[in-house]
Amino acid sequence: MNQNKGVVLKYGGSSVADPQKINQVADRIIKRKESGENIVTVVSAMGKTTNGLIDLANEISLNPNKREMDMLLSTGEQITISLLSMALNAKGYKAISLTGWQIEFLTFGHHMKSKVQSINGDILRKYLDEDYIVIVAGFQGIDETGDITTLGRGGSDTSAVAIAATLGYSCEIYTDVKGIYTIDPRMYKDARKLDNLSYEETLEMASLGAKVIEPRSVELAWKYKVPLYVALNTNDVKGTHISEEGDKMERNSITNVSIMDKILLVNISLVTNDVELINDIFVKLGNENVNIDIISQNKFSKDKFLVSFTTTSDNKYIVSEVLDKLELDYDFIENVSKVSVIGNSMRTQAGVASRVFEILSQNCIEFHQVSTSEISISYVIDDYNIEKIVGILVNEFEL
Amino acid sequence: MNQNKGVVLKYGGSSVADPQKINQVADRIIKRKESGENIVTVVSAMGKTTNGLIDLANEISLNPNKREMDMLLSTGEQITISLLSMALNAKGYKAISLTGWQIEFLTFGHHMKSKVQSINGDILRKYLDEDYIVIVAGFQGIDETGDITTLGRGGSDTSAVAIAATLGYSCEIYTDVKGIYTIDPRMYKDARKLDNLSYEETLEMASLGAKVIEPRSVELAWKYKVPLYVALNTNDVKGTHISEEGDKMERNSITNVSIMDKILLVNISLVTNDVELINDIFVKLGNENVNIDIISQNKFSKDKFLVSFTTTSDNKYIVSEVLDKLELDYDFIENVSKVSVIGNSMRTQAGVASRVFEILSQNCIEFHQVSTSEISISYVIDDYNIEKIVGILVNEFEL
Repeated sequence: MNQNKGVVLKYGGSSVADPQKINQVADRIIKRKESGENIVTVVSAMGKTTNGLIDLANEISLNPNKREMDMLLSTGEQITISLLSMALNAKGYKAISLTGWQIEFLTFGHHMKSKVQSINGDILRKYLDEDYIVIVAGFQGIDETGDITTLGRGGSDTSAVAIAATLGYSCEIYTDVKGIYTIDPRMYKDARKLDNLSYEETLEMASLGAKVIEPRSVELAWKYKVPLYVALNTNDVKGTHISEEGDKMERNSITNVSIMDKILLVNISLVTNDVELINDIFVKLGNENVNIDIISQNKFSKDKFLVSFTTTSDNKYIVSEVLDKLELDYDFIENVSKVSVIGNSMRTQAGVASRVFEILSQNCIEFHQVSTSEISISYVIDDYNIEKIVGILVNEFEL
Repeated sequence: MNQNKGVVLKYGGSSVADPQKINQVADRIIKRKESGENIVTVVSAMGKTTNGLIDLANEISLNPNKREMDMLLSTGEQITISLLSMALNAKGYKAISLTGWQIEFLTFGHHMKSKVQSINGDILRKYLDEDYIVIVAGFQGIDETGDITTLGRGGSDTSAVAIAATLGYSCEIYTDVKGIYTIDPRMYKDARKLDNLSYEETLEMASLGAKVIEPRSVELAWKYKVPLYVALNTNDVKGTHISEEGDKMERNSITNVSIMDKILLVNISLVTNDVELINDIFVKLGNENVNIDIISQNKFSKDKFLVSFTTTSDNKYIVSEVLDKLELDYDFIENVSKVSVIGNSMRTQAGVASRVFEILSQNCIEFHQVSTSEISISYVIDDYNIEKIVGILVNEFEL
């Protein structure tokens, strides 16, 4: 029996976008395999495959049946695992691809947003003991009825961490950026890479829009103490290690500015502050799996109340359907993003919120909404102001 | 419990080539459903999807791992079933898509050429009893280890007939031709459509290259006495019924001329008539799942023996690999097709073979190989002669 320690390597869609890139990933896996480790690789769908499948479904229906969407979307990862396993086999290595249902990756909850229940580690261990490189389809599972389910956007990170937790392995997430930065380097070229982060800081950053890693996967890694490493897919630059402690030395009052784009701000006008109706709105949206983010309520005049909330803009169709059924007067504000400033030490250092308010006011940048947590403050701002505010915040907080 | 009789409707790749065509198929299914029948629909991959997936695999390896090919190719049908079910759901009908493994479509034999073992009809009946339109992925199953398998090219016909046999339903195969003809109407525009055929005649025609229906599916229908109907996907023209008896009234000495293209003729030169070596060649080709068709042996001179056989041209790479390993002297003849004349009554009417020989000779058409069965004669002929010989045969036998 093979008693080696092992690692779960996760490659995202841009790392496996075409056969040539899949061959390059195969070479990197072989290098790791040669070092004597057990290897499980989790992959996403190739490049823009998932978006292509969604477009195809939308040609059939703008609100396609969600069970069938999972049936459709899960094919994307199945294509990648077969091609990567072919590449490894062609290079003379024992490799086997496995779908979600083949490793009994059980999920619960709603289609397209399922949550991990359990994984049959024995199936994985059987192949690992026979010295196979095991390639698992990320993002997908099955529910208790045997229907195919998916974990939602970015779910492959969650798949990778869940498998690492099941096997007691560490998890390395390879992507097209060099690690986790003080701010998205695609937004601000002088952003600083962070060598070490705590689960908590990473979770807050991921939840508030840093796109490098999916928040649920960080939460899961934290819960099961899975050591995480996020790095460039070529692995020729040092990435970011995520652990319980992070790197206390590195702590600034603010460690990160995250931006979440494609936000939909919904304003609903009511004539009275009807608590029952407001509750009904959010229950009905919840039933349709619409994630609600920042909620605010304002009284404009004696007979005008405004209830506002944000959600992701892909929920536009279903939100309007729900609100139309309730015969409500509402409008959408699009082309807005959520900018969040995050830092573990905001817990103990006061004054960050007031400094940010001051900055916005001095620079005449309006915001639509604001919300705060223990270690973050978030503003909903028009897209055309994002670049300006990011430059100012980076300077102000020396990121 | 729903006690209605039912039908399996099979739609091929060209019938579901894009979302618009999938919507049209959904409308035809609904019309049938409204007539009170239980409906199971089996679909192929959309349009040229399977060829696209094969091209993708060949960018990774020219001889990709076959287990992984099945993992890859099975995604094609999975995409179609999800989209068709979405279309039916969007039109307000209860529909559910099911993969091969979800209906326990068990297979045995080799990857990419698997054979049907059994299907769990209870799973299908459960959904039919709940009034669902059931959409099943053709072409795919699982083996006893839980690996995804496929039934080979045209395997969706076999899937449809196997499901019909399991449920005791009839099976209707919708395609892009109006039924079964005396000769492929794409080759000869005045071809006559046959209203009724026996399983045996259809099987011979399908085996000899008539592309309307897959031979294994006819064999399976014959074995389980599944009534078959082959028709245009719009179903606005009467198609061809296939049953035990066919239509005795209609019988001519020759009912059909079939053409199988993309044939590879392999000539192997040997210095002695080495029976053991020849046996070894065919065993090794068989181990690689190379289907061998017409075999002939000729002695050219005291020290030159020629062994020839035909296979499909997609086996070119693997055949050359096997023959190279055996260090044999061989060459390939490509761009040839097999022309077969078929008729149930050839059994009792003599002289057909000699008439065909005479025709070829009078028209100076060379043939590379010939083979005969009880109700057919087949010739391997250069592609550039095909159109000419077809015209002559149709005239000669009044097809």
